[in-house]
Amino acid sequence: MTQTHAYAAYAGDQPLAPFTFERRAPRPDDVAIEILYCGVCHSDLHFARNDWGMTTFPLVPGHEIVGRVTAVGNAVTQFKAGDLVGVGCMVDSCHHCQACEDGVEQFCLNGFTMTYGSEDRQDGTLTQGGYSDSIVVSEHFVLRMPEGLDPAAAAPILCAGITTYSPLRKHGVGAGHKIGVIGMGGLGHMGVKLAKALGAEVTVFTRSEAKVAEAKRNGADHVVVSGDPAQMEAVAETFDFMLDTVPVQHDLNPYLAALKYDGTHILVGLLDPIEPAIEGFNLVFKRRVLAGSLIGGIAETQELLDFCAEHDITCDIEMLDIHNINAAYERMEKGDVRYRFVIDMATLKADQAA
Amino acid sequence: MTQTHAYAAYAGDQPLAPFTFERRAPRPDDVAIEILYCGVCHSDLHFARNDWGMTTFPLVPGHEIVGRVTAVGNAVTQFKAGDLVGVGCMVDSCHHCQACEDGVEQFCLNGFTMTYGSEDRQDGTLTQGGYSDSIVVSEHFVLRMPEGLDPAAAAPILCAGITTYSPLRKHGVGAGHKIGVIGMGGLGHMGVKLAKALGAEVTVFTRSEAKVAEAKRNGADHVVVSGDPAQMEAVAETFDFMLDTVPVQHDLNPYLAALKYDGTHILVGLLDPIEPAIEGFNLVFKRRVLAGSLIGGIAETQELLDFCAEHDITCDIEMLDIHNINAAYERMEKGDVRYRFVIDMATLKADQAA
Repeated sequence: MTQTHAYAAYAGDQPLAPFTFERRAPRPDDVAIEILYCGVCHSDLHFARNDWGMTTFPLVPGHEIVGRVTAVGNAVTQFKAGDLVGVGCMVDSCHHCQACEDGVEQFCLNGFTMTYGSEDRQDGTLTQGGYSDSIVVSEHFVLRMPEGLDPAAAAPILCAGITTYSPLRKHGVGAGHKIGVIGMGGLGHMGVKLAKALGAEVTVFTRSEAKVAEAKRNGADHVVVSGDPAQMEAVAETFDFMLDTVPVQHDLNPYLAALKYDGTHILVGLLDPIEPAIEGFNLVFKRRVLAGSLIGGIAETQELLDFCAEHDITCDIEMLDIHNINAAYERMEKGDVRYRFVIDMATLKADQAA
Repeated sequence: MTQTHAYAAYAGDQPLAPFTFERRAPRPDDVAIEILYCGVCHSDLHFARNDWGMTTFPLVPGHEIVGRVTAVGNAVTQFKAGDLVGVGCMVDSCHHCQACEDGVEQFCLNGFTMTYGSEDRQDGTLTQGGYSDSIVVSEHFVLRMPEGLDPAAAAPILCAGITTYSPLRKHGVGAGHKIGVIGMGGLGHMGVKLAKALGAEVTVFTRSEAKVAEAKRNGADHVVVSGDPAQMEAVAETFDFMLDTVPVQHDLNPYLAALKYDGTHILVGLLDPIEPAIEGFNLVFKRRVLAGSLIGGIAETQELLDFCAEHDITCDIEMLDIHNINAAYERMEKGDVRYRFVIDMATLKADQAA
């Protein structure tokens, strides 16, 4: 067992605060990791505040983890001490269902084990995430971080990146396609970079004129201000895909109308009831498709990391001192981050040294 | 020009009544057809009542037409006088856009010409449908009716059939798949027969216990009473596809929950706002897809007619005397037809003979 220092939510209505707990000793298939960086995802905030009513406290959030291997179990073959590795949203699954066999562990028929807030499949303890100085994870769920990627800026690839990459691959987005990216946050700005790298022509839809220049700086070929009816009318029936990263309720109908026949609107962030209501005719009359997507499988995440290294893609990040995590949550709620906070875990270790 | 006897809607709030008008003389690419049978589709009623605010009166409905060729233009190569032929929902399109080139004329970028209620692309006259004793249609939009299909019972294949067949083909439904068919009307009962013939395992979802035996008689392998929570719970996450033929608002969430991950819910009848709202998580968490579909292309309709001949599939119909069309509309509105009215056009011709 290893004493682990962390920041945890102790209750939904309280700020995160220091927390110390034990990580298990590595099992034969485990990789022990010293955490260097951890991205801050909007889901972390939802779990910390118990927005989904499923949180067991205290809870250590964080599922965009980059670190260095410190030890491995005796059955581990792919990693050794010193390797730079990543851990995303999943740390285990059943390994034998159809989904696991197909490499889409996120759809494990027996439920995947979340990096935080799940019961460990073997000892029943609560999994705890990456706002901590170490973690122990079964080898299959550990990713190789490629050479040449800035490890801090690469951390959000493990959630924000794979969440946008997986549907682009699933739906075969590439050269010759026009894709709209809705929302320019952590997910959206990665969606722009990844769709561009895959060869598509990318248009960012934004509510504010103010973001036009910024979207272009991120690589968008075009920007449409979604609140301008003339701009929306001008793009009617012109897109093959929409990548919709908006996590709050919004009207999908204007975006559906911007799709060609057989076009696909991909939802990655909207979990709430879809209101205003989708007009059935917007789907039926043009054989359009509304498709959900959830993170991605482990093999696909490795593929993405390698793709990012090849195309020199990382996340635009703001480095965060863990002592400021609560202020960061407040800024994140206001959309005031370009585009992802990443905790520098040295700021946590400094407390121990002091 | 040919004087044509018909039944027409003269106004949205009046019953259909006899109407006489001129059909054009065949153009070089035209096929002139004596109509023998015409199916009665729910869309006919919507147009006759001007439910969609786009009807020009007087209007002759009817787009499930079977008849015999009486004359052809001099450029026609595929048909000759005496041939048994069909006409569905479309009588023209632009012929040169991507959709037309791809054989999905229903998505013609310049708008397809509806069998009734559209402007003819050449002379601007209003197209009039199949509740009439003759019709003149451009060769490309005329279907060969295969030998061995009862022509009256085959008429609804031209709309109800292709509307359900096209998405089954598009999404590759076949052996090894479990599909739910929602709604057991004109579309639904064809969906059951076609999905079975394609090799799928078919479950009918019905609101009423009373329809269970009937659904099985139509070939369903299983029947689920959708109002019974225990029955719905028992089929959670078990289907690859849902074919949703219900044309009125209904809650899609219980059916989405019955789909496996990567499952597809196909809408063919619902044009209204989708309420109650779809829960975003029902799509996102299992990568499910909600897909629209609209009739089918001409080549695909011919493929379907041939498929029906091969598998001995026709519609279950109730033969209708055209003088009873208004009573039939009232029964159709109550869902009191098993499963399609088909007008015997001899009943119209009897008026002229008298």
